[in-house]
Parts: sequence; structure tokens; C-alpha cells
Amino acid sequence: MCEANAYLLKNGEMKLIMESVDTVLPEGKGIQLTNIFGEQKFFKAIIYSLSLVDHKIFLKEKEQD
Amino acid sequence: MCEANAYLLKNGEMKLIMESVDTVLPEGKGIQLTNIFGEQKFFKAIIYSLSLVDHKIFLKEKEQD
Repeated sequence: MCEANAYLLKNGEMKLIMESVDTVLPEGKGIQLTNIFGEQKFFKAIIYSLSLVDHKIFLKEKEQD
Repeated sequence: MCEANAYLLKNGEMKLIMESVDTVLPEGKGIQLTNIFGEQKFFKAIIYSLSLVDHKIFLKEKEQD
């Protein structure tokens, strides 16, 4: 399986927010993450960068608008 | 290995732009893709969505600014 762990970059810190992520889809003002177990989480963030061989997805919190 | 294929969404069409992508990093006004062979490509685009179990990354061309 090729799922990855998702980390959120916020105020200079990096926090693990979801493991075994399958899909990341744009949803309203943010993104919806779904893992291989069907669990979903929403974040007001963008997909910032990827490191797939390391199984890592980095999200970055959106600035206030 | 958990690399993925990258597709660019442009004018309603989807085009395969790179296979076996490892990292996607922000770079200037776009993103730099690197595959597992060390080849690099730059696109003026954002990371739009992910479907990792399907090994797919979708990029979207940035609007002109």
C-alpha cells in the first residue's frame, strides 16, 4: 500500500495530523483527507509539498482571509 | 516503492507529465517535481489533489498573475 502520513505546518511547527492517508481533495475553503480506513478530516490548508518515498505529505495552514 | 504519477490539469484536460515522482517541492512561482531517477521538472502549478493508493498526483496550472 502506498498511503502516507500527513503533517500540518503551522506557526513554524510540524504536527502529524493523520496516518495512512489515501486521498486529499479540495473541499470548500480547505482540503478533505481520507485515510485507507475511510476516516475523514477537514483542514483549512493547502497541500504544500510531498515526499512520497518517505510516505510524507506536508500541508500548510491557509492564511486568514 | 511508493512513488506516483503526476498529472497536470489544464483547460479541462488531464495530461501525464511525470512518472515515478518522489518529491514535489514549492519553488519560486511553481513547483519542482523530482522522480526516483533524480530527473527534475518545473511547472507553474499547485498540488491540487492526491490519490495515493492509485499512485496519482494531480497538479493544476496556476492562473496568470
